[in-house]
Amino acid sequence: MPEFMDVHTTMKGVTSEALAEAHQADLAIQDDEQVNFKHAWADPESGMVFCLSEAPSAEAVQRIHERAGHPADNIYEVPIQA
Amino acid sequence: MPEFMDVHTTMKGVTSEALAEAHQADLAIQDDEQVNFKHAWADPESGMVFCLSEAPSAEAVQRIHERAGHPADNIYEVPIQA
Repeated sequence: MPEFMDVHTTMKGVTSEALAEAHQADLAIQDDEQVNFKHAWADPESGMVFCLSEAPSAEAVQRIHERAGHPADNIYEVPIQA
Repeated sequence: MPEFMDVHTTMKGVTSEALAEAHQADLAIQDDEQVNFKHAWADPESGMVFCLSEAPSAEAVQRIHERAGHPADNIYEVPIQA
């Protein structure tokens, strides 16, 4: 299954609680699209949030994020890792 | 130790070998600054590369990346995770 890193750029001031809640919202519905959100990293100062997932496609990642209320600004397939 | 996600935006066409080599170049000198590069994810189509590290500061991350020949375009501290 391909892996993706999606990026949100507008979450300035995000708190631990807010990120946990957003992540839970994804987890609650991710099975609908065979997506597996693995981890999320957030920088409250810049508002940048990075989400690592496994999914059939970038579109599937975005559909889950949209339904959970926080569409990604960019989604990148990351087939190369080290 | 704080964690950082740094982003490179100009590595279009990056190969597995090239990413492995760049990552090794970081690993070889990272102890000089108490940096620990944990993982790198690359999208050869867009040229985006995401590097997760533990480090005393963003500046320490950048100094290692610069010495290894591939300065990051942005470095974000990511104190909030889920």
